[in-house]
Amino acid sequence: MRRLLLAAAVSVGLISSAHAVEGMWQPAQLPGIAATLKQHGLKLDPKTLTDLTAYPMGAIVSLGGCTASFVSPEGLVVSNHHCVYGALQLNSTPENNLIEKGFLAKTKADELSAGPSARIFVTEEIRDVTKEIIAKLTDAMSGAERYKAIEQAIKQQVKACESDGYRCDVYTFHGGYSYQLIKQLEIKDVRLVYAPPESIGKFGGDVDNWMWPRHTGDFGYLRAYVSKDGRSAAFSKDNVPYQPKHVLKVNPHGVEQGDYVMVVGYPGRTNRYRLADEVKSSIGWTYPTQIKVYEDTLNIINTAGKADPKVAVKYASMVAGLNNYLKNFGGQLEGLHRADAVTVKREQEAQLEGWLKQQGGAENAALAADIGKLRQQIAADQANRERNLAISLVNRAQLFSTAVRLTHLAKERPKADLDRDAGYQQRDWVRIEGGLKQMDRRYDPGVDQQFMVYGLKRYVALPQAQRLPTLDAWLGEANSEAAIKAKVAALYAGSKLGNVDERMKWFSADSKAIDASGDSMLKLARAVQPQLKKLEDEGDARDGELSKLRPRYMQAMIAWKDSQKLPVYPDANSSLRVTFGNVQGVAPRDGVSYAPFTTAQGIVEKDTGVEPFNSPKAELAAIKAKAFDGYASPKLGTLPVNFLADLDITGGNSGSPAMDANGQLVGLAFDGNWESVSGDWLFDPQLNRSIQVDVRYMLWVMHHLDHADNLLKEMGVPAK
Amino acid sequence: MRRLLLAAAVSVGLISSAHAVEGMWQPAQLPGIAATLKQHGLKLDPKTLTDLTAYPMGAIVSLGGCTASFVSPEGLVVSNHHCVYGALQLNSTPENNLIEKGFLAKTKADELSAGPSARIFVTEEIRDVTKEIIAKLTDAMSGAERYKAIEQAIKQQVKACESDGYRCDVYTFHGGYSYQLIKQLEIKDVRLVYAPPESIGKFGGDVDNWMWPRHTGDFGYLRAYVSKDGRSAAFSKDNVPYQPKHVLKVNPHGVEQGDYVMVVGYPGRTNRYRLADEVKSSIGWTYPTQIKVYEDTLNIINTAGKADPKVAVKYASMVAGLNNYLKNFGGQLEGLHRADAVTVKREQEAQLEGWLKQQGGAENAALAADIGKLRQQIAADQANRERNLAISLVNRAQLFSTAVRLTHLAKERPKADLDRDAGYQQRDWVRIEGGLKQMDRRYDPGVDQQFMVYGLKRYVALPQAQRLPTLDAWLGEANSEAAIKAKVAALYAGSKLGNVDERMKWFSADSKAIDASGDSMLKLARAVQPQLKKLEDEGDARDGELSKLRPRYMQAMIAWKDSQKLPVYPDANSSLRVTFGNVQGVAPRDGVSYAPFTTAQGIVEKDTGVEPFNSPKAELAAIKAKAFDGYASPKLGTLPVNFLADLDITGGNSGSPAMDANGQLVGLAFDGNWESVSGDWLFDPQLNRSIQVDVRYMLWVMHHLDHADNLLKEMGVPAK
Repeated sequence: MRRLLLAAAVSVGLISSAHAVEGMWQPAQLPGIAATLKQHGLKLDPKTLTDLTAYPMGAIVSLGGCTASFVSPEGLVVSNHHCVYGALQLNSTPENNLIEKGFLAKTKADELSAGPSARIFVTEEIRDVTKEIIAKLTDAMSGAERYKAIEQAIKQQVKACESDGYRCDVYTFHGGYSYQLIKQLEIKDVRLVYAPPESIGKFGGDVDNWMWPRHTGDFGYLRAYVSKDGRSAAFSKDNVPYQPKHVLKVNPHGVEQGDYVMVVGYPGRTNRYRLADEVKSSIGWTYPTQIKVYEDTLNIINTAGKADPKVAVKYASMVAGLNNYLKNFGGQLEGLHRADAVTVKREQEAQLEGWLKQQGGAENAALAADIGKLRQQIAADQANRERNLAISLVNRAQLFSTAVRLTHLAKERPKADLDRDAGYQQRDWVRIEGGLKQMDRRYDPGVDQQFMVYGLKRYVALPQAQRLPTLDAWLGEANSEAAIKAKVAALYAGSKLGNVDERMKWFSADSKAIDASGDSMLKLARAVQPQLKKLEDEGDARDGELSKLRPRYMQAMIAWKDSQKLPVYPDANSSLRVTFGNVQGVAPRDGVSYAPFTTAQGIVEKDTGVEPFNSPKAELAAIKAKAFDGYASPKLGTLPVNFLADLDITGGNSGSPAMDANGQLVGLAFDGNWESVSGDWLFDPQLNRSIQVDVRYMLWVMHHLDHADNLLKEMGVPAK
Repeated sequence: MRRLLLAAAVSVGLISSAHAVEGMWQPAQLPGIAATLKQHGLKLDPKTLTDLTAYPMGAIVSLGGCTASFVSPEGLVVSNHHCVYGALQLNSTPENNLIEKGFLAKTKADELSAGPSARIFVTEEIRDVTKEIIAKLTDAMSGAERYKAIEQAIKQQVKACESDGYRCDVYTFHGGYSYQLIKQLEIKDVRLVYAPPESIGKFGGDVDNWMWPRHTGDFGYLRAYVSKDGRSAAFSKDNVPYQPKHVLKVNPHGVEQGDYVMVVGYPGRTNRYRLADEVKSSIGWTYPTQIKVYEDTLNIINTAGKADPKVAVKYASMVAGLNNYLKNFGGQLEGLHRADAVTVKREQEAQLEGWLKQQGGAENAALAADIGKLRQQIAADQANRERNLAISLVNRAQLFSTAVRLTHLAKERPKADLDRDAGYQQRDWVRIEGGLKQMDRRYDPGVDQQFMVYGLKRYVALPQAQRLPTLDAWLGEANSEAAIKAKVAALYAGSKLGNVDERMKWFSADSKAIDASGDSMLKLARAVQPQLKKLEDEGDARDGELSKLRPRYMQAMIAWKDSQKLPVYPDANSSLRVTFGNVQGVAPRDGVSYAPFTTAQGIVEKDTGVEPFNSPKAELAAIKAKAFDGYASPKLGTLPVNFLADLDITGGNSGSPAMDANGQLVGLAFDGNWESVSGDWLFDPQLNRSIQVDVRYMLWVMHHLDHADNLLKEMGVPAK
């Protein structure tokens, strides 16, 4: 799922034909459902899965947006092709297009840096810090105070935990019902080792995205490097391969229909416990509005890209993302309508509230009252949705948002680190600096101006009460599109922030210097930034309120489920999760059955010679000759390519290892089927399926087509 | 398949998983393949299927473009909804839209005339007349002479055979290798008895056309009426229901997966024995060109229809046809490419010619030489394809083609009937008259003019040598679109042929009167008609050549197949055929399986409330309540709707009864799956499937939704 790469994830439900096992389980929850795990076929002791420093969990890592696994003692990491796409893009030139040709480092010396912001995060510790975070919270606190108190407590936890080379984060579960501190080794020297050509790694492209049957070789390899003394370090020729504590064993025989399979990874976000009112708003406003905005954005980029191919290259990744989301939003709407999600949620809430009433008692009455307050708070939030959208669209202009960020940073820098706003602490500076340095690769002043004009057009349509006086002052009388265009054109003409050296200069400047600057964009930013900050603070205050009310809803939910002896898994929050089930097909609609496996013959069927169905000639010839080198499945009588399982995954799970009953690698999750798109909200056990690339296809492509036998040997795969 | 209604058919191949039985067999051929029939499950003696006056063949009739069956001793006939669509249209008004509401005559008195041109043809005799037709042919004859001689011989056969109420036709098999005289009772009083609402009968509309899974209730009922003395007669209130010799028994239990099934009907046309050069021309020119022409035509109609809804109604049927063909042509191209049809045909021809050479002897050498000549003749024909298309497009203007027809008719009328051109003999006059009378319903002068302009634009682009001097003389200097438009506008302004009384006046006029007419369209027609006739004659001469060469190719083909002990069925030619096989699903592509049955639940799944997926509320409620009244399949546990079988059908088979092993009615063929679209050219046993509406769905809709219990009783279906 390319979606995973693209931050604000999208999900896929899980299933099992007979006993559906919906759930993105925290490793610590697994012993509590040991019987179910065994029943589905797990051979390992579930307890071993709770130890993050043991096999196999010790081998699973995060790439920040994607999941990956160590597969050799020398720090070799496998993930999806679309998760190493950025590294391919970074190292590609029109003359040497690695995306198109693929890439294989025959020796470590040939490996290429994946760039200064590439990361591999190795989780080393998870600790519950709920007590510590909520210690100072009182009922009397306002939303803003509560938000601030939580933020402070989190910062303290992070500060106490972080040390050189380690990153710590506090993850919020159930909207604030519990908190966990997660400590990760942050590997900063990441190198590109191998990726098949795009005609394999992205076969089917946008056409097949979210679709089954699928035939995508969505895999690629990176390597983690550390300093000679074994510590996290930025890229250096002197660095050496990182030696992971555990390495996933590859099962070259894969799995077959019905076999147990589990996926471990970092799912980003789900909305399984949202209220009916929130679902209704998503169906009625959010998705339709976003679809319109994304279509308009694609028009802007495509028009500019036709005029200048260089612009098309710069925004290629954004275009891919927008198309991905557009398709996704269509699927969300379709799925939410199909499931009649608002009704389902309303009924569930009524049942929960009925149960609370039935139980009686002051505490249950208080819980019911808080659920009512939660609904009010949600309604209040929705009143700001148009304003928030307009501001976010203006902020999409990178020159503007960069100026605001520089202005904000200069204000935070003099403060004590713990007092700095989140995102502007010392630990964030490297990331901010990297963003400033790399902006040019994805920035065109013409397109950027159009983005700003587009956002401002939406902004000037807001009611007066929702507008920002400072922004209005700058706009003056400019209300028409032509007037706004002229304003923005002058703004860009008066700014040098398009130049990287100029940006770097301001990165370390203080507020006084920024205040004195004659740069038109910095002038606008320093006028507007305080009001943007105020909007953020207001948002934080609302989040503070929600952080009081959502946990109450979840507390009621957990009590209710507990009364039915049902465990409750938390919504995805980018922390490590396990989903398990079985390899199985799906019957998406009356008369149609999808097999759990696709095969190499399907590649020949789909091939048209034209992207995204332009398989390499050598691959087509090999398939026609059935030259599968022993990687074919004896059961299928041919080479499997992708397979379905009833696993509960979502964005962030891209690249997650699919493991068999013994915890050995049998594939990589990379997408969900079309019916699973709306699984983020509501899980349908009959229809939701995860899509994995089969390990046998991976090994065959590596061996037969790309001759990556050096890697196969390193991974301990028997030679063919 | 709505395609069937639309004349120049489109096909569907047959199959059988293990032993594919491609073939549209002549009834007389069946005893020759008795073993295969038994092997597939037929319980009847194949010999009974050769007797057209016995059960079940005696119950199968033609509607002229569709097939139907007698299902009651009182002349009740069942066919597809899309085959009774014209009768629904004829009897509909904006205030009383029978297409939308459906129609049920509760008593015979309520039945509605299907119009003066509606027909039911009951085949009573098939006789081989090859000897008689070829008796006077000599090798020395030119193409034109040969064509004329065959035409004369056919006319004589027809004349000797036809008598009051009977229609005789000579059908050409294998391009002239053999001829059969077929005698049919022509029933002229046809009445509309029952059709479900369009939301059942056309459920899925154009979206689902050619598609599986399908959920269309594509059935409807007519009744045959004759005079009190049992003879064919035009509509009269005094007429009485026709008493057929045989009536299909209904098997209310239907068939299940794997069961034997056969379809008997009148497939229109296939091209299974065309040469590689002809396939190549279809792929490279015919289909792409027609696609362009049809798209342009739809643009003309849609623009006019938006401005005036009445125009939209008049051309609704044409629009449906064009859309149907457009989709079909896309499928043809896709299928021919998928099958690499040109290569397959070339290889087959090479094998055939290799076999001829291997056999040796003068006769085989002569056959090989004739195959070479056939290729030359085909190439010569293709040189005229642009010209023929342009003329046919001009002829699409009904006012123009009507004037030409009237002019032609006036010239033929004084001749002895046998000397009259085909299509202008006395037996054709009623049809011509009916066409003149009913033209208004599908004619709008504005659209008609645009059609003429469109054709002329294509015409003026022809090379000088291919143009018609008389048409050029009328056009004068008009070469630009604007000039052509002005010419055509003046032409239409000067003609009264848009008026039905005026047309009828000229229907009986002689040439002298037409020559004296000042009607601008008749003036143009009388100038151009002789040259159009000359083009027709030239076409006839080429057909005469082909009628010598194609049978030689088929003679070689039959001998070659015979050497492999393979029977050869002739291409479809609208004569009665039998195709047999089994109920079975299909795996259209890697990872996808289609079940052989769709079920009522699929209707609920597809329903959107919006046409063409707007099921009646009562139907949705009944399905949700599982109120299937005993019509559900015990095996499926629910109500079947449509089913697949590996039968070899094509356009003309619409409405054909699907019969079980005992020759009882279990459904009606109405379409083929997408992969079968190119089956007209090349048959793929793995992929081609016919689509039938299940008898259990028909009976349930009649009983539960439409309360047509009067008909169920008449058909002898046990009451529920």
